[in-house]
Amino acid sequence: MLKFYFSGAPNPVKVALFLEEAGLPYEGIPVDTRRGDQHKPEYLAINPNAKVPAIVDGDVTVFDSSAILIYLAEKTGKFLPSPGDRARGELLSWMFFISSGIGPFAGQSVHFRVYAPEKIPYALNRYAYEARRHFGIVDARLAKQKYMLGDTYTIVDMNLWGWARLVPMVLGEEAWGKFPHLKRFTDEIGARPAAIKAAALRERYKFKTEMDEEAKNAMFRHLSEKAV
Amino acid sequence: MLKFYFSGAPNPVKVALFLEEAGLPYEGIPVDTRRGDQHKPEYLAINPNAKVPAIVDGDVTVFDSSAILIYLAEKTGKFLPSPGDRARGELLSWMFFISSGIGPFAGQSVHFRVYAPEKIPYALNRYAYEARRHFGIVDARLAKQKYMLGDTYTIVDMNLWGWARLVPMVLGEEAWGKFPHLKRFTDEIGARPAAIKAAALRERYKFKTEMDEEAKNAMFRHLSEKAV
Repeated sequence: MLKFYFSGAPNPVKVALFLEEAGLPYEGIPVDTRRGDQHKPEYLAINPNAKVPAIVDGDVTVFDSSAILIYLAEKTGKFLPSPGDRARGELLSWMFFISSGIGPFAGQSVHFRVYAPEKIPYALNRYAYEARRHFGIVDARLAKQKYMLGDTYTIVDMNLWGWARLVPMVLGEEAWGKFPHLKRFTDEIGARPAAIKAAALRERYKFKTEMDEEAKNAMFRHLSEKAV
Repeated sequence: MLKFYFSGAPNPVKVALFLEEAGLPYEGIPVDTRRGDQHKPEYLAINPNAKVPAIVDGDVTVFDSSAILIYLAEKTGKFLPSPGDRARGELLSWMFFISSGIGPFAGQSVHFRVYAPEKIPYALNRYAYEARRHFGIVDARLAKQKYMLGDTYTIVDMNLWGWARLVPMVLGEEAWGKFPHLKRFTDEIGARPAAIKAAALRERYKFKTEMDEEAKNAMFRHLSEKAV
């Protein structure tokens, strides 16, 4: 059975959504990143980047949530756009937009808002600006169409949903007011039975919730290691 | 003919490398990001993210360098790993590792080292640590094999090369000493005739080189716009 290494963070939840939507049987294997499970040699053999999610599907290992979504969509033939060059170009463009833009910049905004030990105005502004800019681009697109690639629900939507549901954490509680179309989209996907199951997956396991010294050192190693 | 929107930045150069390696005819269209060309409505219609590179191939538009590399490799059947599930999983994992990890974190390190108007020790350390960690992962892999996916030169190598050649800008001149295998790989790819042509492409156009107020405002809009 497919092994799914996960935590309650945004990236694993996207993959959980696909697995539930596709009805693929899987064994969930929790990786408690606040206890440092991601740095253990047996996990690094699966994902040398020490991040979740990853999957092991027979003799195939795939890490990075976007890579896993494409791999699983191709394997099952589900949640991909209709065949055609234009659709393929759009799929790839938006998957990488989310992966290289929304994910990292939203992640940096959360880091400086929530986790960094000091409030740094320059960094707070840079990443809030970039996160808002990125969410604004998809909001404008979703003003004109139901899903990211048109009328059909695809892995691009699952990928976006994983981060869009965290808009309040990335930009503050009032931020939804700026992205009404993204809010409509996020609420609609969040109400799907598969999304409810995906979001609840973390509750089946006892992940550490305290952000204490152990957790900070496991998640943000640069706090204790000087690189410059 | 395929239209290739580019500048001299790391991401367009990867796509130029593919085009030269594959011998695909293309029309290069410079986008001078220091003059703000990327924010013009006609370019935003191609890439709403206001970044280079992008391509227009008949009625297909693709943006983001990694997306373009996969699109072109699939279109031409070149520089992809041998067919097989394992190879597909590895290809996707490493493409997204570069896109969501190496690119953004190296980019943040350059921003705080080179462009930010103030020196912020916390941010400098965070991004130098993360850039070094990411480059260390691929260095360890290249200690054991010639290319990222084994013996065969693929789009993963082109993708990595685009950023690896900037290691000194990301981490300082002395940083190569920490990544001998990545250095060997980067030098080898950089000596290929296609790489020499790709790197020289920018010299055919007069891109603005001054990082003056116009350039900073075009490239880092958060400098003049408050988001928090």
